[in-house]
Amino acid sequence: MSDYYTKSLEMHRQHNGKIAVTSRVPLETRDDLSVAYTPGIAAVCEAIHENKSEAYPLSMKGNSVCVISDGSSVLGLGNIGPEAAMPVMEGKAILFKAFGGIDAIPLVVDTHSAEEMIALVKQIAPTFGGINLEDIAAPDCFVIEEALQDIGIPVFHDDQHGTAIVAVAGMENACKVSGKKMEELTIVINGAGAAGTAIAKLLRCVGHDPEKCTPVKEVLMCDTKGIISRSRSDLNEFKIGLLNYTNQNNRSGSLRDALDNADVFIGVSKGNLLNEEDIKRMAPKPIILAMANPIPEIMPDKALAAGASVVGTGRSDFPNQVNNVLVFPGIFRGALDARATRITESMKMAAVHALAGAVTDVSADQILPDPLDKTVAPKIAEAVRLAAIEAGVICPSFAASHSALPLTPKSAS
Amino acid sequence: MSDYYTKSLEMHRQHNGKIAVTSRVPLETRDDLSVAYTPGIAAVCEAIHENKSEAYPLSMKGNSVCVISDGSSVLGLGNIGPEAAMPVMEGKAILFKAFGGIDAIPLVVDTHSAEEMIALVKQIAPTFGGINLEDIAAPDCFVIEEALQDIGIPVFHDDQHGTAIVAVAGMENACKVSGKKMEELTIVINGAGAAGTAIAKLLRCVGHDPEKCTPVKEVLMCDTKGIISRSRSDLNEFKIGLLNYTNQNNRSGSLRDALDNADVFIGVSKGNLLNEEDIKRMAPKPIILAMANPIPEIMPDKALAAGASVVGTGRSDFPNQVNNVLVFPGIFRGALDARATRITESMKMAAVHALAGAVTDVSADQILPDPLDKTVAPKIAEAVRLAAIEAGVICPSFAASHSALPLTPKSAS
Repeated sequence: MSDYYTKSLEMHRQHNGKIAVTSRVPLETRDDLSVAYTPGIAAVCEAIHENKSEAYPLSMKGNSVCVISDGSSVLGLGNIGPEAAMPVMEGKAILFKAFGGIDAIPLVVDTHSAEEMIALVKQIAPTFGGINLEDIAAPDCFVIEEALQDIGIPVFHDDQHGTAIVAVAGMENACKVSGKKMEELTIVINGAGAAGTAIAKLLRCVGHDPEKCTPVKEVLMCDTKGIISRSRSDLNEFKIGLLNYTNQNNRSGSLRDALDNADVFIGVSKGNLLNEEDIKRMAPKPIILAMANPIPEIMPDKALAAGASVVGTGRSDFPNQVNNVLVFPGIFRGALDARATRITESMKMAAVHALAGAVTDVSADQILPDPLDKTVAPKIAEAVRLAAIEAGVICPSFAASHSALPLTPKSAS
Repeated sequence: MSDYYTKSLEMHRQHNGKIAVTSRVPLETRDDLSVAYTPGIAAVCEAIHENKSEAYPLSMKGNSVCVISDGSSVLGLGNIGPEAAMPVMEGKAILFKAFGGIDAIPLVVDTHSAEEMIALVKQIAPTFGGINLEDIAAPDCFVIEEALQDIGIPVFHDDQHGTAIVAVAGMENACKVSGKKMEELTIVINGAGAAGTAIAKLLRCVGHDPEKCTPVKEVLMCDTKGIISRSRSDLNEFKIGLLNYTNQNNRSGSLRDALDNADVFIGVSKGNLLNEEDIKRMAPKPIILAMANPIPEIMPDKALAAGASVVGTGRSDFPNQVNNVLVFPGIFRGALDARATRITESMKMAAVHALAGAVTDVSADQILPDPLDKTVAPKIAEAVRLAAIEAGVICPSFAASHSALPLTPKSAS
């Protein structure tokens, strides 16, 4: 680990961070200047002025995403402020390029309330084809994302939905290994922050058939005080909101109580929380996604020894790495290709199925693709693009001019 | 012209605008990912968290400028809005890279008051090493720039100061051709917008010796109603402000009256305003910088026939093109190299002298370098860097750690 720290510091100092802004066009002669700059660009400006949607093909808008953070919840480091969040945003930007071919612009901002961030994102939206909210603390991240769903371009909080999509895709393949069915699962999610909440939300809609949205059997959310239930009096409005789609049987008790006979444990919490006894409380062949970083909630060898059928973690040195990089480049690539105005639940589920489907030989050691597999993002992108068209959430003028596109997965077949 | 329009539209459509965001570091293996992203970057985030100024070497901040516009005054097209301003911002970004080696990020924003723009720039400042305000209408551009001088990074409105610096540098060399002295000039500026105002301000300080700030003899500003003077009752607060450093003898009358016996005409107004008779009113061997685009205030052949000693325009098809691209890459390169916190008048004048000095064989056809001459920006950058150190406007921790730098041009010699 400390070796990576040293190398990373050296690399960043050597390169002045990680990203470069370069030109796609030549700029050597007077003619080049007249075409790429004045007087030629006046025509491009006027074309966009006449029809705003021309900004997609004629400017970087059509291929760009802003990766924006206030630095309020960075990695495991907490609220370290905007400047210190830059290495993550730049890292995300180069991943967007490597896997999605997207020109991503990192932006760290000095805002101090959800209202300020909402106003700011609305103001910068004309530049970009999408907004990736990043490392923003809960509950502000929920408020901010919700308020920005109608601004005309997709606004997607990756720490919520990227994590949820990859976790649910992993679960889908893990079910094949352990012989379980998604709609019959009892799932315990430990950690009621951004990622845990998004996973619970996405689990409302797991059916393989896009026409049929089937919830899993039961979802129990736990925080540090145990199961989130109606009988608790210490819940904030966001945790109360979770009760709309979790804990339908109003169970209460500790995390351990929740694990009794559960099929799946999803940890987005802290390292070393569970022991072998906890795994043995669960239903036969349980599925464990222990995603705390760098130390998982339980180490894979222990969980497997206690009877787990599949174990995933956030780490690259164990099998089944649950890593957002499998999702965000493809999601935004598909959204940009469709000129999507938002990212719907059906687009997220299309990404889940495409991601799960990208694993050809599903096994206990392989429920998800390798995070460096560059064939994954294009598969997700195509599924998301079609789902956007199906959902009708694409830029109207683009829809009109592309009637030749396959309008739904069905009409395309 | 229409040929450039067509080619420019085709080029922008083909390339999705003009800029790309690329990675400076490899991203092929798990090791690459661990160094460029997690877990390695945690160390980089922490290093910046401990000392904010580490953002300069460890993130893109140290080599980046934001080119920001609200689209309220784009080229000659007026208030065409943010989306339609993008081709200019992207064009500026690739010029920053080609001439200054700077990673410039274009940002077009939907703001509707100076206050909103001021708040926004303060919020995004942590990302960047400098802010280039672009194509913002007067008088908001004055208010915005003024309010942002203390935010810790340079905020520079190029339409004002870039134009002023290149015009004054051109004038400096034109004086050599016509045998005039800067401090004895009577100058008429036609056009009291962003550029005209900035030229008048910079002319307060034209002496070659940085220790000695010498104004020119007289500056008369004209707008569409004639000379801006104390006797007029139709002036807004910004034009009243101009009277602090123009029209010391309280002359009044038309543009033609202003031209009587003037040494220099600077046009930042409209095409075809002047005729040969107007030039003949001026002092012998007048200097004409007719910068209206695409049609100058008077065509060079006419002005020369009427006795002008030197004529500059904004156009690339005549000699002496007065083009901002000669200035902004070098100014910001120097500011970034010094980690400057602002751009002072002395830094602007350092740029003027470096730019004028970059022309080796000054003649009536060569008062400024070719805009595509890549040796100019490094010369300006070095002069600006030293001027920033001299003025003491550099990031304090950087100053402390670089005591080996030449601290002033004098101590370096």
